[in-house]
Amino acid sequence: MKTLSQTPRIRQTPFSERVEEAGVKAYTVYNHMLLPTVFRTPHEDYKHLKSAVQVWDVSVERQVELVGPDAARLIQMTTPRDLSRMQNDQCYYIPNVNQFGGIMNDPVAIRLDDDRYWVSLADSDMLFYYMGLAAGFSLDVEVFEPDVHPLAVQGPLANQLIERVFGQDIVDTRFFRHKTIEFNGQKMIIARSGWSLQGGFEIYMEGWYNGIPLWDTLFEAGKDLDVYAGCPNGIERIEGGMLSYGSDMTMAHTPFDCGLGKFVHFEGAAECLGMEALADADQHAREICPIEIEGPPIGTPARPWRVIGENGTYAGRIASCAHSPDFQANVAIGMIEQDFISPDMNLTVFCEDETEGRACKIVEKFWLR
Amino acid sequence: MKTLSQTPRIRQTPFSERVEEAGVKAYTVYNHMLLPTVFRTPHEDYKHLKSAVQVWDVSVERQVELVGPDAARLIQMTTPRDLSRMQNDQCYYIPNVNQFGGIMNDPVAIRLDDDRYWVSLADSDMLFYYMGLAAGFSLDVEVFEPDVHPLAVQGPLANQLIERVFGQDIVDTRFFRHKTIEFNGQKMIIARSGWSLQGGFEIYMEGWYNGIPLWDTLFEAGKDLDVYAGCPNGIERIEGGMLSYGSDMTMAHTPFDCGLGKFVHFEGAAECLGMEALADADQHAREICPIEIEGPPIGTPARPWRVIGENGTYAGRIASCAHSPDFQANVAIGMIEQDFISPDMNLTVFCEDETEGRACKIVEKFWLR
Repeated sequence: MKTLSQTPRIRQTPFSERVEEAGVKAYTVYNHMLLPTVFRTPHEDYKHLKSAVQVWDVSVERQVELVGPDAARLIQMTTPRDLSRMQNDQCYYIPNVNQFGGIMNDPVAIRLDDDRYWVSLADSDMLFYYMGLAAGFSLDVEVFEPDVHPLAVQGPLANQLIERVFGQDIVDTRFFRHKTIEFNGQKMIIARSGWSLQGGFEIYMEGWYNGIPLWDTLFEAGKDLDVYAGCPNGIERIEGGMLSYGSDMTMAHTPFDCGLGKFVHFEGAAECLGMEALADADQHAREICPIEIEGPPIGTPARPWRVIGENGTYAGRIASCAHSPDFQANVAIGMIEQDFISPDMNLTVFCEDETEGRACKIVEKFWLR
Repeated sequence: MKTLSQTPRIRQTPFSERVEEAGVKAYTVYNHMLLPTVFRTPHEDYKHLKSAVQVWDVSVERQVELVGPDAARLIQMTTPRDLSRMQNDQCYYIPNVNQFGGIMNDPVAIRLDDDRYWVSLADSDMLFYYMGLAAGFSLDVEVFEPDVHPLAVQGPLANQLIERVFGQDIVDTRFFRHKTIEFNGQKMIIARSGWSLQGGFEIYMEGWYNGIPLWDTLFEAGKDLDVYAGCPNGIERIEGGMLSYGSDMTMAHTPFDCGLGKFVHFEGAAECLGMEALADADQHAREICPIEIEGPPIGTPARPWRVIGENGTYAGRIASCAHSPDFQANVAIGMIEQDFISPDMNLTVFCEDETEGRACKIVEKFWLR
């Protein structure tokens, strides 16, 4: 485990002071910003996420704001998902693709008004693609990163905490819908969403200076709920099959490769610039699969692990893996070549620092309870 | 100092194995990839860089390849520097700007042929902007990240090492020019360039599998030159006034703010999309300045430090600072508001974790020997 050198190029967040005080042990860097990865231990964080409520500094979900008469046209150019029926209180998971159908990002789009959207990013500078398209197509739209820093509230007790601070009406928000709250005199968006399977909310915290007061308010109100600082948990998100852009999928993959074919709407999203390429990509050569790896508990790959078939041929790669305490198994996400996608296939994975391969198998589905 | 969690999203490089063996102590993340920051101590690395020769894994300088009839037009759209006289063996430092004149990156462009360029990036996904412009303007150009991973050879003994491995003809390469070498049967570009003031070369290592053999060849040949693994050194680059994109300057700044006005050619680079905005930005409100900070040695800011003037008004920010052993001073790079740019001005900087401010002053020039 190596030290991370901190410089202003790796941006801190409005919550960094409290994150440090809560005893953050490790970070990753995401969109040029700090993302906590461990507070107590990955296992303790996991158990706590599944039993109580956590507050997550996910400021790294940087927003791109698109506002103006061409905002809807611009956002549709970047995704094969049909956005024509999206309502002004909706959030949509939208794979973003380039002209070749390759995935550039897999953000959540938030529609704020008929001509105003936020795109809540995974780890890549989609802002630049939006700026390039806006310039090239001479679109009447403003494109910028607003002063918005998401704070997630996740876990089975999230409803209780949110009810105490923002009231029952907010708790009644439906999945992937958003409402507006007021905090410190600032209006903010809150959505029922988040990068865990435990349920909860994401507050699109607006105004840097409101960060510490909002954090403190949540912690004060949740004392008896055992509220604690948390972060996206590797074990929990792999169990649930939530993909990480840059690890499980890259620009070399199409939505079909990633099991995201249901978000490709050839009719409704014809304006998407990658649509022509995607028409050819339907017969995809590989696909995301849930995989179980045999043997003693193993940790996270630092680089993708190679999977081979019986005859030693390349069968795919595994970029996410964790030992699940609840399922007592090494759970993993693999990108597997079609010829090898069958539960009967004898597959071997080469984990780093291990001289011998381990047997692994494709399982029917991710480990959802 | 916090731990960096390593996952495949933070890409390793073709040299990572050797970097680890050389005892790397810390990393930063740059273009979604690992960049070493310390091998022995920052001071030891600094002394060694200034006296011997180092091999740097700077694979993080990701390349964007532009190839096709519109390649020259596309690259000119992104920079205010006139590229019309650039020759096929030249490298140009080109600030990249958006439509508003804000800096998106400050790469080195390498012209490989009349219709083929590499753009060797600082820390942002310029690939996405190039893709967006190419799509929007319907340009006849391919835009992609090639299998190229720069390895730098820096320090006063760089010439000797390069002479041994690649011959005198390569050593005779002029500053910011490139030649072609052959290694392991693979042609590669080598340029006289690099992110230090000590002189040296950058090998645009092509073909991932050639990484370890190239590294080993350089170390074998340089044993008696005290060759060692190194990396861009914070102390040395601040002494020399080399700006770090994302720290010293961001998209909120124009080239004029950054002392890069000499790269804005209103006549020759009229195709640059930011030119209209830059015409208004000439009267800039702030500027990059070399700054000396009083008091005992201090280290690198983790977030920008605030600078105030006598009356307590905001006077600017410092995002890079180090204690220089050679100049026995705290050397820093500041972005200072025009009203405060004068050597007589009494300025105070608030360094993190210090309760009181420290006096600082603008000095005439960076600490070049």
